[in-house]
Formats: sequence, C-alpha cells, structure tokens
Amino acid sequence: MKIEGVFPPIPTPFDADGNLLLDKFKSNITLWNKTALSGYVVLGSNGEAPMLTDDERAALWQAAREAIPSDKLFLAGAGVESTRNTIALAKRAAELGADAVMCVTPNYYKAEMKPAALVNHYRVIADASPIPTIIYNMPAATAIDIDANSVIQLAQHPNIVAIKDSSGNVAKFANIIREVRPDFTVIAGSGGYFYPALCIGAKATVAALANVAPRETIAIYHAFCNGRHDEAQRLQLKLVQLNAAVTTRWNIPGLKAALEELNQGFYGGPPRLPLRPLPDEDRAALRKVMQDAGVI
Amino acid sequence: MKIEGVFPPIPTPFDADGNLLLDKFKSNITLWNKTALSGYVVLGSNGEAPMLTDDERAALWQAAREAIPSDKLFLAGAGVESTRNTIALAKRAAELGADAVMCVTPNYYKAEMKPAALVNHYRVIADASPIPTIIYNMPAATAIDIDANSVIQLAQHPNIVAIKDSSGNVAKFANIIREVRPDFTVIAGSGGYFYPALCIGAKATVAALANVAPRETIAIYHAFCNGRHDEAQRLQLKLVQLNAAVTTRWNIPGLKAALEELNQGFYGGPPRLPLRPLPDEDRAALRKVMQDAGVI
Amino acid sequence: MKIEGVFPPIPTPFDADGNLLLDKFKSNITLWNKTALSGYVVLGSNGEAPMLTDDERAALWQAAREAIPSDKLFLAGAGVESTRNTIALAKRAAELGADAVMCVTPNYYKAEMKPAALVNHYRVIADASPIPTIIYNMPAATAIDIDANSVIQLAQHPNIVAIKDSSGNVAKFANIIREVRPDFTVIAGSGGYFYPALCIGAKATVAALANVAPRETIAIYHAFCNGRHDEAQRLQLKLVQLNAAVTTRWNIPGLKAALEELNQGFYGGPPRLPLRPLPDEDRAALRKVMQDAGVI
Amino acid sequence: MKIEGVFPPIPTPFDADGNLLLDKFKSNITLWNKTALSGYVVLGSNGEAPMLTDDERAALWQAAREAIPSDKLFLAGAGVESTRNTIALAKRAAELGADAVMCVTPNYYKAEMKPAALVNHYRVIADASPIPTIIYNMPAATAIDIDANSVIQLAQHPNIVAIKDSSGNVAKFANIIREVRPDFTVIAGSGGYFYPALCIGAKATVAALANVAPRETIAIYHAFCNGRHDEAQRLQLKLVQLNAAVTTRWNIPGLKAALEELNQGFYGGPPRLPLRPLPDEDRAALRKVMQDAGVI
Repeated sequence: MKIEGVFPPIPTPFDADGNLLLDKFKSNITLWNKTALSGYVVLGSNGEAPMLTDDERAALWQAAREAIPSDKLFLAGAGVESTRNTIALAKRAAELGADAVMCVTPNYYKAEMKPAALVNHYRVIADASPIPTIIYNMPAATAIDIDANSVIQLAQHPNIVAIKDSSGNVAKFANIIREVRPDFTVIAGSGGYFYPALCIGAKATVAALANVAPRETIAIYHAFCNGRHDEAQRLQLKLVQLNAAVTTRWNIPGLKAALEELNQGFYGGPPRLPLRPLPDEDRAALRKVMQDAGVI
Repeated sequence: MKIEGVFPPIPTPFDADGNLLLDKFKSNITLWNKTALSGYVVLGSNGEAPMLTDDERAALWQAAREAIPSDKLFLAGAGVESTRNTIALAKRAAELGADAVMCVTPNYYKAEMKPAALVNHYRVIADASPIPTIIYNMPAATAIDIDANSVIQLAQHPNIVAIKDSSGNVAKFANIIREVRPDFTVIAGSGGYFYPALCIGAKATVAALANVAPRETIAIYHAFCNGRHDEAQRLQLKLVQLNAAVTTRWNIPGLKAALEELNQGFYGGPPRLPLRPLPDEDRAALRKVMQDAGVI
Repeated sequence: MKIEGVFPPIPTPFDADGNLLLDKFKSNITLWNKTALSGYVVLGSNGEAPMLTDDERAALWQAAREAIPSDKLFLAGAGVESTRNTIALAKRAAELGADAVMCVTPNYYKAEMKPAALVNHYRVIADASPIPTIIYNMPAATAIDIDANSVIQLAQHPNIVAIKDSSGNVAKFANIIREVRPDFTVIAGSGGYFYPALCIGAKATVAALANVAPRETIAIYHAFCNGRHDEAQRLQLKLVQLNAAVTTRWNIPGLKAALEELNQGFYGGPPRLPLRPLPDEDRAALRKVMQDAGVI
Repeated sequence: MKIEGVFPPIPTPFDADGNLLLDKFKSNITLWNKTALSGYVVLGSNGEAPMLTDDERAALWQAAREAIPSDKLFLAGAGVESTRNTIALAKRAAELGADAVMCVTPNYYKAEMKPAALVNHYRVIADASPIPTIIYNMPAATAIDIDANSVIQLAQHPNIVAIKDSSGNVAKFANIIREVRPDFTVIAGSGGYFYPALCIGAKATVAALANVAPRETIAIYHAFCNGRHDEAQRLQLKLVQLNAAVTTRWNIPGLKAALEELNQGFYGGPPRLPLRPLPDEDRAALRKVMQDAGVI
C-alpha cells in the first residue's frame, strides 16, 4: 500500500434534522471518483467523526466501500478516547473493507497523554488492528501535539505506516522523515503547506481543500513530482486562501457551503449541532475566495 | 431538587482486561452510602466517561440507580460532542432513573465553540431533556472555558439548574452568582477550593477528593454552614494536597490507587488504556499524602 | 514589616505625548492617602512598568517616596528579565526609600524558565537586595505560572516575604499557605477574589480595583477581619464587575478612564503606546459598571 | 537593500560575572566574516536583548558596526514594550550605523495586543525610524502570533521591509507572500524550515543555526537558488537536529556551548541569569548532534 498523493477527508452529509444521508454521501464520492485523487479519508475531523454513533460510522464505511473503486485507498478514521474502543472500531472498519485506519491522538485526559502513554496506545492498536494504522495528529482540535521522537519510535512498528500531521510544523516533518524507514509516510494535514511539505519529504496530503479543489490540489502534486517547482509554488500560493476558508476561517460549515457553491452536484448541507451552517452573510466572501482560487 | 453539599464523581471499576465490574461499582456505592454525601456523579471525567460505549454507560447508570438510595441525588454525566447524541444519552439516563444530567462542553471543534454555539447547544439539550441539565466546564480536559456571560444567559432556562465549574476561577463564580436566580447552583469542580467557593456563594462540590475523603470534605461543608470559618479553613488546608494527589498530580490513576490504599473495602483497579495504573514507585508518596491528610 | 490589607498598584500618569507627569502622580497619591490603604505598589503591571526607562522608574520612585507617608508601605515594582538588572533596580529602589521590591517572573525565555531557574533567580535577587523581596506571579502577562513548590522553597529565604499571585488559583494559595512560615504573605493579585483568598489565609491584595474603589475594597478586608462573612461576601459580589472592568475587560485603558470618571480629582490620562486610550464608545458602559458598584 | 540569504542572530558574550565582552564579540564577527553570510542580527532573542541595558545595547551596536564589513547587512534588534522606547532605540541604532531595525512584537499586555494595536505600533515606529523596519514575530517567547492580515497591511508602509517570522507556519508565509509587494521579504525565523520556506517564497533566514553552521546553512540557500532541490532537501534534513539543539532543545545555553565545541576560536561563555549554562551532562549529547550534522 502506497500512501501517496491527495486524499480528501470527505464530509458526512446530513439533512436539516441531522439524519445521515448515505445516498448523498455515495453520490459525492462518485463525483470525486472522476478525478485522480489517490483515495479518501472517511470519518476524519472534517467527516464530523465525533458527532456519529458507532453504528452510524459503520453504515458510512459500508457505503464508502461500495462507492470507492479498488484503485483508490479507503482510509477510515477510527480513533476514539479509549484504546479498547479504537481497536473495536478498527476491526469493524477492516471487516467493512477499509484499507487502513487513521487514529487521532486521545486527548480528553491531556495531563496523562505523555509520550509514553501515546506510544503505548498506538502500539497496542497496531498489534490488534487487522489493517495498517495511521497516526493522526490534530493539535487545533486536541490541544495535544505528538512529538517527533514518539513518531520515530512508532514508525518501527510494521503495522504503523504513516502520520497525518496537521500541526503545520514542517521542521518536525523533517525531523521525522530523516529518522524513519523509507516507506513510512508523512502526510501533510492541510492543503496550506502541501508543496513545502512535499519539498521536505512528505508524500501525501489529507486536506479539506481537496474536497473542493481536487484537481488543483493534485496539480501541485504532479508539478512537484515532475520537478516543476515554480509551477508548484504558484499553484500553492493560489490555493492558500481557499484552503484557509475551508479550515481555520470557516471550518466545516465553510467546507460544506463551498461544496454547494461549486455547483457541480455535490451535496453539502448542514453540519450537526453544536456546529452550525455558514451564516448567509459569509457566503459572498466565500464565493469571492473561490473565484480568486479559480474553482468557480 | 436541591444541589447542595458534597458529590463524588465516582470512578468506574474495570478488571485487568478493561472489562466493566458492575458488582464492584455497586459495592463501592454501598460503602459511600454510609456517609452524608448528598449524591453521586456517575460518568463524570473521573468516571472515565469518554472510555465507555453508550451501552456500557447505560449499564452503569442502571446499576447506579439500584445502589443509590432515594435520599441522595443521582447525577448522570451525559455530555458528548454532538447535541443530538447528548440528548439521546440524557433521555436514556432519565429512563434509568437519573435525577439530572451533567453535560461537558463540546470541545473537539474548538474554533467553532464560540459563546453563541455553546449557548445554543445547552438550550437545545435543556429543551429536550426530561430531567434538569447541569453545565459542566472542565478546561483542563477540554481547553474550552465557558464564559460567565454565557452561563448567566443559560441560567434563565428553567431546565438548566447548575454549573459544575472546574476552572477554579472563583472571581468568575462570583460574577455568575451575582447575576443568576437564587436556585441556580454553582458547584465547585474540585475539592481544592471548596471552602473559598462556598464563601462566595457556591452551594456544592463535585470533587474527586470526596471519593477518598467523603467525611472530611463534608466536614468543610458543615463547618461553613454553621459559621465556623476557622475550622473550615483549617480543614480545607489539611486536604489541599490530598486533593491535588487525586486530581492534577496523579489524576485517575491516583484516585483509583488511593481508594485501594484506604483499606476500607473500596475497589480501585486499573483505568482503561491509554490511561495507565499509578506506577508502584508513586504509591509510597501517595500514602504519605493520605497520612498527612489524616485519611489513613 | 506587615503586608496586610489593601494596596493599589497605582497607574503612571502621562500627557498626550507620553511624557511622565510626576505632579499628577503625586497629587493622585495625596488623594489616596486620605483612605485606609495599607500602601502602594509603584510600577506594577498597572503602573506600565515595562513602558518606562530605568531613569523614569527612578524618578517615579523618588516622587512616590515624597508623597507616601511613613505609615503606609511603599512597594516598588522592580522585576525585569535579567537577574542582574533586577538587582540593580532593587538597589536603586532601596536607595530611594522603597520598603520592599516586587519582582515579576522573567518570562521572555519561557522554555528555560523551569522551576529551578526561577528559584535560583529569586534567591540571587533576595541575597543581593537591601530590602525584602516579593515574588510576583502574573500569568496573563507572562504566560508563566510559578508553581506552589517553588514558592514554598523560596519562602524559606529570610529576605523573601510574600508572593503577589494573580493566577486566581486559590487552591494553589491554600497549598502555599499550608506550608510556609506564618509571616510569609500570600497577596491576592486581583480584587475579584479578595474575600475568598482571605478566607483561605491570604492577608492582602494588590488590586487595580483598589485604585478606583479603595474604601469599598478596604471594607471587604474589615468585614472579613471582624468575622462579618455575609457582609464581606455581599461587598465582594458588588465589586466583581467593576474589578473586571479595570482588569480583564478594559485593562489599563479602563483603569485610567475609571479614575477620570470618579470625578474626585484623580488624573487618568492616556497609557503609553502600544496601549491605547479607552474608546469613547466604551465610556458609557464603564460608567454603568461604576454606578452598579456604587462608586459613582 | 536586499534582505536575502543567511543571517545569524549572533549571541552576546559575557564573562563569568555577566559583564559584556566586546572584544570577544568582535572577534566572533571576524570569524563569521570569512563566510558568505549576508549579514548579522545584533540583539535578537539569541543575542539576549532583554538582558541588556540600553547603554549596553548601544555599546554592542557600536562594536558591531566596527566589525561588520559594508557588504554585509547589520540588522539591529531594537524592539521593546513601548512604542516610544522602541523608536528611541531605532534612532540610536541608526546613528550607530545599523542598516535596519528588527522589532519584536510587544507582548506583556497580551490581552491588549489585538491586530489594530500591533498594526498601529509598527506604523508609528516605521514613520519615525530613520532606517527600515523589520517585524519580528516570535510566539515561543511572546505568546503573541501576529496574523497574516496585519502583516499584509503593514507591508504597504514603505519603511517596513520584511518580517522575521519564527512561528514556523509556512501556510501563513504563503498567505503573506501572495499578497505583498515583491520587495517585502519573509524571513524564516529558524533554520529548521529554511528550505521549505524558500520553496514557498521566503528569501532569507535569521537562524541560530547559522551561528554554528554558517557554511552548511548557506549551502541550502545556494542549492535552492540554483534549482538543486534534491541537494537542498538533503542538506536541510541533515541540519534539522542541530537546529533543534541550538533552539528548542537547549536554547541559548546550547547555542553558546555549541560555539565552544566548534573549536574554531569562537567565544561562547555563559548566558546571563536567569538563563544558565548548558549542564555538563548535556555536552556529550550536543557533541553527538554536531557530529551527526557534520560540523565537528
């Protein structure tokens, strides 16, 4: 399994009452399938994973498996607070056909999440999981930032194959890349620094941006792979504000609204409470950002 | 319903494999029942709520209802990330006989948890919950600190009856107490500042300390209620290090170990991974703290 | 030297061009002298200490010595980043007649300000200072929070006599008070938790609030000292929003504006840039808060 | 003035009693002059600027001017808390021959350092400074992180020519670079992400690393400028741990010790208290890191 290229962490469609819309979910995937995306993350942060019950997660994974072709990877977000329940989810994801699980750092008991505890957590998961494990570092959500040394230790486990790191700390990426086996992948956790991360040795991105600008994000990757650095830089600069719009600026409400604004048939819809839809007064600003980035 | 006095957030017993031990849970409650505790929080942070499945939560609540006498309050920790699932848990807790639900602030999508989103979250819950709702503010775990103005707004809802605030910010307590209706209760979220919180108008504490020193914590309350301030201060100072031992210093591992060290028949046992048992080398220091506090 | 009661950290008057106004400074003190304030902090955070040159600090201290009567304590804020320069300032303050120096934790090199470094810093200062040293903990400004154990160690030094702690963490206050010699004083660093801090054993406050409500703040102290707890609580609750107005809500701009709004002859004036005067549109809200607190 | 290439923020030599050693300072510069460094930052964070009196700063700048040849830039660190004193220092630096001033964000009054206050601060400085102004963003020291929009606004001022940003946030770099005039320079504030920052459009680095590995850091720059991306990446990875050693891992004590370990005639010496020299037991680990990086 090669984790290379561009992976959108796809959103989860709900109706106005907050019910899961599996058909919309599958039709969205069908639309993305027309691009050169390397695969999908189903139930990452952008998928509102913490908002779903375990059974809803399973239903979503099953639908994903039906919609994702075999030449694209299906990465299942499966991390919860307890090691035990994370393993249970990993097994369920494996049964439903996921290619790997991506597990966010536990974070509720922050004071106890010292390096040794996190390292132990991931080792126990990787020992038990039928499919490869990806570490998921997301400090903006967890207020936890797994350190390079822990990642380097964990990369020695044959069933731990990558880290998706959303810290944006490319010096840490370099530190990890220098020390790990060649087939352990550092995945840029945002589209805002995809090209500089590639330059330092990252191989992929899981980026909200890739939901609304899949071709453009893939173009960065292709330019880099073909040594066209000037083009890669130019494309990266062009996308940096759209990336912010669907992440730090407007978050999931912005991401779902942007899918709608594309007018390509994607379903966006509301997030689940306590998240709230993008206010109408921000729609115009969002469209302006999308126009500047050339996606509408 | 009067939320006054001392409430331990009771721990959840597991065996060495991490399985729930409902018998131990009930026998622990039977021991605490011999004291003047005002009630129990079942599945607060100290109850490792984020470590349990929904069905495990329900099983624990059912067992709690069987063990808690009717003259003590049964407060069920029922807060999860989504408003929808929090409501579902609140209904289940109500069906199983809980007197109120205590709901931690959602926190994964930190950037979106602005005051208006939190206020809306709690209002929707309180509208739907069959039993009264208690706001639960726990910045050390959530990296979210609900502000006084939001609490003051929420206190106008007839089904929101209290806030358990673990920020330790007694100036904020004062700000809230000044503005809310008399029967809205501020609950000190830790035993380390119970007496000063009472002085400023708090009426209760939910304190890990109360698990291992119920009588001593209650003695603070009684001294205060009877105007014996010098005694209340003396008792508070005597307990401050034991309180730290089972919270900031050694957390849940320390709390469970301290229950064992009491030698009164309480079951402590290991926490669920990624939390790990108190290292043996810390046991002696824990015992020393317990001796200084006069509980062993 | 007994550090007991109420000490305002007095602001430093500037004209519209940012020049020091020593006459206004002295006339302000003359006004405060009519109250039962126990003394003054000259060049604390509210005195804009970091905005002044060393010579300006000395000029201010000299003026303060002329204006402060001998029955009130003159506490000089003298902490800067280097131990060496802090000692130089402490010596200058002593020569100019200060009774003690109050030294904020160094904080620029945060990662290096571990407990051992801070303990060493204060010991070296206390060894060299001709007058007693007061530790000053101000996390909102420094992003450093000196821990209880460090304070307990430092309290063994005969020339370290107190800590002004603005963390608001009354459990930490209790921890310190339990372990230190009786004549080591914990000073509540804000008027928002003065009464609860007294309850747990603090002896004084250094509070911005005491600049604009000296008599009311002193009334809390007297009520407490005379065992009138209900009155102390009532007074504390009445002042909590005014305290916020001149600290967390509007900071030094709010404090200086509030002095003007008192209409008692105090000079407020603008702060030094980059601080900016309170916007006109906030004046009405400030007046409302002052009216509610009964000071205008 | 072109701010391009590699600039070490040079340390300030002290003897064992903490006295300035201007001769050692000049002889260090003489050694660095043999390399292709583009210039020097005199009195950045690594120069222990907050530890010096204003007169010591001036003495150091004068010595710097004597030692720095005219074909290298002399950037003077001149930022203090008050706008007024920052301007005074900027004028003094200009008189003493500095080419530009670099001014750290004021940070003591954090709550008031909102975007508008910071923008105003830098505009007033830039209006008054005889030489160009460089914004200096250093969140690890200041707990302030100036946002991209503020920088973009400030870049419109003709006398604000660059930002040294030590946040490591390359997505923010991209955001800035996209919006500012071509001759406004983003300077990578650490050597740990120099190459990825160059890829996205940064033109220079001010890096502690460049003190101990000037030639190696310059080699990254030359490889990038000549389109040899693979070599640049390889060099960057080779230096990432040495960079950490003299920054996040051991800070200034590590930087000064590393200069000594080079055995090339550089003077390191102790930092000023409260900073303390690198403990002897860390020297061996430091040497190991230096060997791995190929600098000894």
